[in-house]
Amino acid sequence: MLFSTAMKQTLTLAVVVMALLAFVEVRSQERAKTIAERLGYARDAKLLIVHADDLGMTHSVNAATIKAFETGLVNSGSIMAPCPWLSEIAVFARANSQADLGLHLTLTSEWTSFRWGPVSSRDRVSSLLDKDGYFRLTESEAAAQADPKHVEMEITAQIERARALGIQPTHLDSHMGTLYQNKELFEIFLRVARTQKLPVRVARTWFSRADFLPSVLSQDDVYIDRILDIDPTVAPQDWAKFYSDALKKLESGVTEVVIHLAYDDAEMRAATANHPDWGAAWRQRDFEFFTSDAFRKILQENNIKLITYRELGKLGK
Amino acid sequence: MLFSTAMKQTLTLAVVVMALLAFVEVRSQERAKTIAERLGYARDAKLLIVHADDLGMTHSVNAATIKAFETGLVNSGSIMAPCPWLSEIAVFARANSQADLGLHLTLTSEWTSFRWGPVSSRDRVSSLLDKDGYFRLTESEAAAQADPKHVEMEITAQIERARALGIQPTHLDSHMGTLYQNKELFEIFLRVARTQKLPVRVARTWFSRADFLPSVLSQDDVYIDRILDIDPTVAPQDWAKFYSDALKKLESGVTEVVIHLAYDDAEMRAATANHPDWGAAWRQRDFEFFTSDAFRKILQENNIKLITYRELGKLGK
Repeated sequence: MLFSTAMKQTLTLAVVVMALLAFVEVRSQERAKTIAERLGYARDAKLLIVHADDLGMTHSVNAATIKAFETGLVNSGSIMAPCPWLSEIAVFARANSQADLGLHLTLTSEWTSFRWGPVSSRDRVSSLLDKDGYFRLTESEAAAQADPKHVEMEITAQIERARALGIQPTHLDSHMGTLYQNKELFEIFLRVARTQKLPVRVARTWFSRADFLPSVLSQDDVYIDRILDIDPTVAPQDWAKFYSDALKKLESGVTEVVIHLAYDDAEMRAATANHPDWGAAWRQRDFEFFTSDAFRKILQENNIKLITYRELGKLGK
Repeated sequence: MLFSTAMKQTLTLAVVVMALLAFVEVRSQERAKTIAERLGYARDAKLLIVHADDLGMTHSVNAATIKAFETGLVNSGSIMAPCPWLSEIAVFARANSQADLGLHLTLTSEWTSFRWGPVSSRDRVSSLLDKDGYFRLTESEAAAQADPKHVEMEITAQIERARALGIQPTHLDSHMGTLYQNKELFEIFLRVARTQKLPVRVARTWFSRADFLPSVLSQDDVYIDRILDIDPTVAPQDWAKFYSDALKKLESGVTEVVIHLAYDDAEMRAATANHPDWGAAWRQRDFEFFTSDAFRKILQENNIKLITYRELGKLGK
């Protein structure tokens, strides 16, 4: 028996609808999986990104971070394109194309003896500049004064400069968190990141303190569970204990520990003069802990697996 | 007896003409004097400016130069306004307003791991930039590509940025000699310097190798007799001997010894990597000789007097 044309059309439509429903179901199941599962780990796996910020800032930062990368214990980092030592870290990036290097998009120049300004033409991003032509000192000033068009132009220019130097960024984050200061800036950040098909640093635990985040993020955006970073209230002698304790009680899911590596040398002391928080000695302490056998042992004993933004980035594509 | 009106007018005119002639004669005699005489020294005095270049480039350069200034043996220097450590040297300049600090006008970014670009908006001085948005690597490329309007805009912007940071420059010179590469660039340099009422680094001994110099300079411009600088062919172990010999046979008149001070440390080695000429060890050797008791003794024994651009600048006003 032959089907009438009307029946054929109805059947075709039904098949299409069923296929669509099945696809949505699969996607929905896929989305219901944790990132750990999507990466092939157990649902309760403890996954860690050990992420060094501020690459390109000084030679001291570059040298310490490259040394830490060689241990395999620090496995991710992000680069500041406006900074004077960008070219040095670009040489490393070109020679280590599998290294997990993102861009630390920068709209502040926070040290007083050592400064930097935009990659874009100054007169096209005037709202981002202080009276001396550098980026502003603080993230709150930068966010309050920034013209959104200037922000989009400048962060795009930073990505373009990095790519021109042979850096293929695996992710994006924001120096001093300027791009998370308000919804408008975060929307620009996310729009640029989606255009570039790159994951951004966002943690689910941030949703409570930046309540605009969930409304801007979509289910296609990949974001991690939490950020671990040390606080200026931790005394220098308690540095290793702080990190050890935090790692021993690490929850399952994806955690990014954000660290700042450099040597406590003349360059770094001068760059961070009069500012012990995130200063030269702070960065030397981070370097020492995250390149130590003690840290390696904690990872092993607590079954913590290191992952990178390169793997996370593939989930969002 | 009373003079007629016509006679009075004639007499007045004669007196004015005589006064003018006398003035011209005094000025002419003044010009015939050597700079040494005009500064109050004997005609055959040996006058020396000990001049450190590249201030603001790195912390290492700044720290070594400030240390050398404290000895009194290095008494002049010039600052690179586009460089990242400008703010650090500006703090020194503000706190030491009598220090003889000029501007080392910069149109090149010659190191490969560590780079800088213009003070002006990039899109207004595009001829000065390489493909990555930094100044070009060499003075010959920079001079060959530079649009004269861009050069004038950029060097003026460098002077303005320095003044905005509280640096009151006493003189101007040109990093890597870019502004002496051809007549057109030198004319711009001199026009800006005259507008700013600042002396420029020009030596009479340069006239033979840059034959356009005399035609651009006027008798109102103050310039020195010769530049003394060490050559890459001098072996490291002969460093002190080269300078000692040159100073012991110093001719009378004004000599500027152009030196490059920094410490042979991690920052400076990385900044000047793969380039021993004017590299970290070179600059440490310059630092050691020009802060030594041996140098102090040579000055005394050879009756060499230190002068600065601050004094030369007053002659041109």
